[in-house]
Amino acid sequence: MGKTVIVSIQTHKRKEALDITKTIKDSIGDVKSGLVVVYVPHTTAGVIINEAYDSDVADDILEKLSQLVPYSGSYKHLEGNSDAHIQSSMVGSSVSIIVENSKLMLGRWQGVFFMEFDGPRRREIYIKIIEG
Amino acid sequence: MGKTVIVSIQTHKRKEALDITKTIKDSIGDVKSGLVVVYVPHTTAGVIINEAYDSDVADDILEKLSQLVPYSGSYKHLEGNSDAHIQSSMVGSSVSIIVENSKLMLGRWQGVFFMEFDGPRRREIYIKIIEG
Amino acid sequence: MGKTVIVSIQTHKRKEALDITKTIKDSIGDVKSGLVVVYVPHTTAGVIINEAYDSDVADDILEKLSQLVPYSGSYKHLEGNSDAHIQSSMVGSSVSIIVENSKLMLGRWQGVFFMEFDGPRRREIYIKIIEG
Repeated sequence: MGKTVIVSIQTHKRKEALDITKTIKDSIGDVKSGLVVVYVPHTTAGVIINEAYDSDVADDILEKLSQLVPYSGSYKHLEGNSDAHIQSSMVGSSVSIIVENSKLMLGRWQGVFFMEFDGPRRREIYIKIIEG
Repeated sequence: MGKTVIVSIQTHKRKEALDITKTIKDSIGDVKSGLVVVYVPHTTAGVIINEAYDSDVADDILEKLSQLVPYSGSYKHLEGNSDAHIQSSMVGSSVSIIVENSKLMLGRWQGVFFMEFDGPRRREIYIKIIEG
Repeated sequence: MGKTVIVSIQTHKRKEALDITKTIKDSIGDVKSGLVVVYVPHTTAGVIINEAYDSDVADDILEKLSQLVPYSGSYKHLEGNSDAHIQSSMVGSSVSIIVENSKLMLGRWQGVFFMEFDGPRRREIYIKIIEG
């Protein structure tokens, strides 16, 4: 109870999908059953669950989001990263994953990805486990 | 505590929105208060909450997602289902719904839909109830 | 345990991002640690977490969603608000935020926004706190 793990990561490109599955798995410890919430405290990044086996999948997701929400556009926000703010809200700031028998109940092909939309930057992930 | 209901379903089309509201309601049992997490362990499917009264709404959502992320495109992933992976991350892999008095606190028009983006297939849904 | 706060709000435009961060903070009370789930029981509205400092960011998000999913289109649903239903499922019906030391663990620039896609209307927000 009452614990949030804060993990610091470094991204290396402006757009990048970082596989953080192992980090999430390691945070479970001896919790038997409950829910893991992976939360991104940034407004130009997000988190998704998708295929971890072929990294082309994450690349396709980043590329399509860049096509739908291009870097240049008639944006009001003048910091040059409106695309990143919008992409962040399209994928979302958190994911929830079930835990049983102290294991993440991910599907066979699923992994957890930190989605960097305005890197490279030093970033944080908050991981909270609710037992139940 | 410590229970996840796993439900198996069959989809019938490549793109399909399956109303699973009753399945979720039935999983609550005698839990008085808490949170239901509906989790999809697949990378080419997702789950949403939207209008259940007029099925045209779900059809419009599927159609628009197919326009924004077409089947054919310059995708790197070569299995012919990149559109489905991307659509999955645009809607998300889980939804959370509040439970009070042993009832799902859905809004008047809301239902829960399994979103198939690369069917037809045999699929699973994980349902976890956190009391609190 | 067993409490959901229901907050009523009024929106003023068809498309509007309402900063509800203070409302969420006020709902925590003396809960020390856990999870806050902010749930929107409507099918033409949603909720996101994004930058609260410069309101241009939320405007850019609304504008881009309106470009990607225009008001007019070949929609089957005939109530004239299919754009709003689709936008609702693109951002999602709930967000989850971690609580520690009785504080919302939002990032430095983050705020919580009710996303109105078919206003102006009287709307509700369900706020549930799970301790743990």
